[in-house]
Amino acid sequence: MLDNLKKEVYQANMDLVRHGLVIHTWGNASGRDPGSGLIVIKPSGVSYASLKADDMVVMDPDGRKVEGDLNPSTDAPTHLYLYREFRSIGGVVHTHSSFATSWAQAGRDIPAFGTTHADHYYGEVPCTRELREDEVNNDYELNTGKVIAERLGKLDPLIVPSVLVNGHGPFCWGLDAAEAVYNAAALEEIAKMALYTVLLGGRESIEKYLLDKHFLRKHGKNAYYGQGKM
Amino acid sequence: MLDNLKKEVYQANMDLVRHGLVIHTWGNASGRDPGSGLIVIKPSGVSYASLKADDMVVMDPDGRKVEGDLNPSTDAPTHLYLYREFRSIGGVVHTHSSFATSWAQAGRDIPAFGTTHADHYYGEVPCTRELREDEVNNDYELNTGKVIAERLGKLDPLIVPSVLVNGHGPFCWGLDAAEAVYNAAALEEIAKMALYTVLLGGRESIEKYLLDKHFLRKHGKNAYYGQGKM
Amino acid sequence: MLDNLKKEVYQANMDLVRHGLVIHTWGNASGRDPGSGLIVIKPSGVSYASLKADDMVVMDPDGRKVEGDLNPSTDAPTHLYLYREFRSIGGVVHTHSSFATSWAQAGRDIPAFGTTHADHYYGEVPCTRELREDEVNNDYELNTGKVIAERLGKLDPLIVPSVLVNGHGPFCWGLDAAEAVYNAAALEEIAKMALYTVLLGGRESIEKYLLDKHFLRKHGKNAYYGQGKM
Amino acid sequence: MLDNLKKEVYQANMDLVRHGLVIHTWGNASGRDPGSGLIVIKPSGVSYASLKADDMVVMDPDGRKVEGDLNPSTDAPTHLYLYREFRSIGGVVHTHSSFATSWAQAGRDIPAFGTTHADHYYGEVPCTRELREDEVNNDYELNTGKVIAERLGKLDPLIVPSVLVNGHGPFCWGLDAAEAVYNAAALEEIAKMALYTVLLGGRESIEKYLLDKHFLRKHGKNAYYGQGKM
Repeated sequence: MLDNLKKEVYQANMDLVRHGLVIHTWGNASGRDPGSGLIVIKPSGVSYASLKADDMVVMDPDGRKVEGDLNPSTDAPTHLYLYREFRSIGGVVHTHSSFATSWAQAGRDIPAFGTTHADHYYGEVPCTRELREDEVNNDYELNTGKVIAERLGKLDPLIVPSVLVNGHGPFCWGLDAAEAVYNAAALEEIAKMALYTVLLGGRESIEKYLLDKHFLRKHGKNAYYGQGKM
Repeated sequence: MLDNLKKEVYQANMDLVRHGLVIHTWGNASGRDPGSGLIVIKPSGVSYASLKADDMVVMDPDGRKVEGDLNPSTDAPTHLYLYREFRSIGGVVHTHSSFATSWAQAGRDIPAFGTTHADHYYGEVPCTRELREDEVNNDYELNTGKVIAERLGKLDPLIVPSVLVNGHGPFCWGLDAAEAVYNAAALEEIAKMALYTVLLGGRESIEKYLLDKHFLRKHGKNAYYGQGKM
Repeated sequence: MLDNLKKEVYQANMDLVRHGLVIHTWGNASGRDPGSGLIVIKPSGVSYASLKADDMVVMDPDGRKVEGDLNPSTDAPTHLYLYREFRSIGGVVHTHSSFATSWAQAGRDIPAFGTTHADHYYGEVPCTRELREDEVNNDYELNTGKVIAERLGKLDPLIVPSVLVNGHGPFCWGLDAAEAVYNAAALEEIAKMALYTVLLGGRESIEKYLLDKHFLRKHGKNAYYGQGKM
Repeated sequence: MLDNLKKEVYQANMDLVRHGLVIHTWGNASGRDPGSGLIVIKPSGVSYASLKADDMVVMDPDGRKVEGDLNPSTDAPTHLYLYREFRSIGGVVHTHSSFATSWAQAGRDIPAFGTTHADHYYGEVPCTRELREDEVNNDYELNTGKVIAERLGKLDPLIVPSVLVNGHGPFCWGLDAAEAVYNAAALEEIAKMALYTVLLGGRESIEKYLLDKHFLRKHGKNAYYGQGKM
């Protein structure tokens, strides 16, 4: 079932490796079928070298396995929570990519230091609070999803398509799994330049009007970047 | 029309990827036809993986599209302004390469810390002032070109072939698109070493006589680097 | 003799290159045959480009060469000491990988800054004290093994599978040579992110309950990461 | 003439690219024929992509071109001076590799922070004083050689096979061109780790007895690293 979505999600997982965002098994991508609402996700702890599209696990929105011989990613409850909370998204990616994870480990939001950032995030990339002991000990992965949604608050997840989980690493999303991977790659580059900017004594953020200009020329109602409706 | 220039500009765009200067669609290269003054530029928002020489867009110096099915790069007004102001140049490149962009985000000129720098830039790589709100809200891309020219002032664009746009990233140029790419790659390496030099507590700049020596042995009237007129 | 183990150890050595953990001859991997207790190790000073599985040297636990035309790695006495002290391990790897070695050169333990760390090390990655003059002048490589074991103390080597040797670099181990390489690659990435975290002003360590959660969901008796007993 | 040496020197130049030590034309390698004392060196300003073994230029020790259609590297007078001063060497390499050049730009010796360093350099990697104005304006490249030899002083060039030229970059040497490249690659990695060590607050240098141990187990009369006289 959902063979095309399985291929898409498989490809998204392999693209994490191709973009240099994961080593070993340190990442996972999932996608949502818009019709049924079912989720396709990477199996847990399977190396990318041996991964196949058929290994993808199908789950229902409440976390029951619908199809698949393997256990789903340990992070599945986080993915599922995000799908439930963010109705507009169709793909979720989690990585431990070097620079984004370092900001998460430092517990810091990534300020909008420049237009590269503004092209992709309408404001800082937020970092969550630390989870409390009870939130870690009980339903840890579910609570990881909750703290992401809590931190995002009223922001549209499609204009701030990533959150850093404090002491952990980034979760990214998008309209589908491929866009979530795209955002994860953009985030890593933005996080890298933000570290270098800090080392060069950079200021806190670009002006709001420049942030508006760049984000809205690419994403707004009057966007004029790209080829329009192709 | 201009099939050879289209191939050159296409190749220049692909070389940005090969040199590791762009990911996603974060960069663009253009070239000027010396005879007609027409400009050939990358289309907006087209991924490098699917780009073809025939996709290149032909524009006249005032920004009218002369040929091409696709929209030109959003940054076309910046390119066109630079071609109008800098009569000697035949190629322009814009990237968000990691290190050069970080200096731009920090709003800092790159000092001439060494001979690598002096081999390519006759003095610091200048960083523009920030654009004002009205300059961002109206004709933003044109004003980006204006602030570059303002910052360069009376300097010959061929002896300082790059400017950092504050909070944004580098624009580079040269006699043709290939040379602009060459300069963009040199700039990124120079920006990288300049950051490391800062971290090691490096001084502000090399002595003027060493800057003169290196720039002029390579570029001056009495240059003796290379193979002369081959 | 031990042809399969030779192939495994050869492959582990080549994987050090593939993972970008060694240049020149700056690393070595070994494996232990569980039946006989014999050790198979890389020959000393042979370049990876010309290395063959048949070049691997077989040694007994006390350091006598059992088979092989070449001299074993200079670090063989360190490997052998670790095998004698840590009965549960079957593979040892030594590298001079950039980031892990930099922490060793700074003489600092790597704090558990995040869950990536906690997934692989149950606590900080420890750094040894400096060796004294007599320990360097006499049986240096043996004393390197001793100071590693001294630093690890009562910790289970399988829950802290790496130690940094002060002023030198990392030694890593695992159930077999492949797992030791896996840990060496994880350590390098963890060391990289830890440096970036320090540069971003990161705190000392994640909370103990988060460390427990991540390490134990992957390695503990009740681990639920991965595919269980496959 | 000297066809084998031309091939060796050509290969050494290409290996600079393979090791990631040069972009564009930012480096050059040369070799000395032990019989005739003639020097074979890269031509000036020729891109690595189009370089051929036959392009190599043959010079006599006093700088007269003996064979070759192209101009020799601008840095030839530096190479030639080093060959005259350092009788034991047979190869010289100059690069602008990122990390080594950054130390040169900061005007700092690279301290022996660890055993990786000690395996290759018997003490710090020295950085020269700045050249004076007259030394830059007259016979600049010759004076670059002189300041290298001045800085090295009575040290054996084979135990400290690299010097950083202040504000410029590294020169490396060895018994032949291949060994000079080998040393240039080692230096770059050592310079990288030394920067990271500084960022982690590392101390000035390892103890003299550890430096002795590592350098001498590999290079001394009683060296026991490697396969001996093979």
